[in-house]
Amino acid sequence: MEKYFFTYEDIHKTALSISNRVKDSGFESDVIVAIGSGGFIPARIMRTFLGKPIFAVGIALYDVNDKPLEIPRKVQWIEEAEKKLSGKRILLVDEVDDSRTTLEYCVRELLRHRPAEIAVAVLHNKIKDKKGAIPPEVKRYFAGEDIEDRWVCYPWDARDIDEHGRQAAAAAAMR
Amino acid sequence: MEKYFFTYEDIHKTALSISNRVKDSGFESDVIVAIGSGGFIPARIMRTFLGKPIFAVGIALYDVNDKPLEIPRKVQWIEEAEKKLSGKRILLVDEVDDSRTTLEYCVRELLRHRPAEIAVAVLHNKIKDKKGAIPPEVKRYFAGEDIEDRWVCYPWDARDIDEHGRQAAAAAAMR
Repeated sequence: MEKYFFTYEDIHKTALSISNRVKDSGFESDVIVAIGSGGFIPARIMRTFLGKPIFAVGIALYDVNDKPLEIPRKVQWIEEAEKKLSGKRILLVDEVDDSRTTLEYCVRELLRHRPAEIAVAVLHNKIKDKKGAIPPEVKRYFAGEDIEDRWVCYPWDARDIDEHGRQAAAAAAMR
Repeated sequence: MEKYFFTYEDIHKTALSISNRVKDSGFESDVIVAIGSGGFIPARIMRTFLGKPIFAVGIALYDVNDKPLEIPRKVQWIEEAEKKLSGKRILLVDEVDDSRTTLEYCVRELLRHRPAEIAVAVLHNKIKDKKGAIPPEVKRYFAGEDIEDRWVCYPWDARDIDEHGRQAAAAAAMR
């Protein structure tokens, strides 16, 4: 099955497009919460356009032996979260909405700290049956692009960035 | 004064080169600590090559009115840091070593949690008089490149990534 290849420039433009849609929707976030480690790069780019501070949370879906976990495990969470998130408008950012498990888990954990609102932004949403569900408290969900359920090759995972660029150019030429 | 322009691909290759030098030095980190928000992108790329989890810390050098602070302020720190960092080999990552204030502050704070070792990695080190000093406990310091004391335009700060690419190409042609 064909894979998706996105270049950094693709990601940057998608992050800009999402940022504009976030602003156009009237949602003015107080903070960006990046889900690590996939959300770090989109969140950092969106910070350029939204100008808000980033908090990072680390979530693991697999244990140290690469076995899937029943419940995601917190690698890092926000210290004194209650104080920092209570009453705040949070924009939660990740790279891809795949099974939706991580997003559901993070939204539920963040909701416990009584934010004013949580919106979700992802670069890519895979159109597929989802294991998780976005809680109804989330009124705004922004996906840069809806994509098919195929493997996604992000530039930051490339061991050879030039080869990655060639693959991305070849995939773009096929469209 | 001429500015530096780096593309994402430049950054990716510099992060690869640093990762190789970290490995060649014999330093095997247990965790990467990314100084936010500038360290997020280099740390995430280095994670591809080093395969270690990332903890994020947020540091502000300016107050809400953009006035410089006497002491950097923690925007986010590592929860239960003692437990997570004690006895660990830490690779502390930021994008640029400018005045060295942030790096000194972060190293000193991390040292309080008695790690086994701290190494520092930055994409770029500005050759200039430094206000801060890397504490002597740090035995390994990796800079992707030593650069002059000029303004650095990183790709993630670009409002127009195509224009940024053109500027980077023009600057490269001048060399």
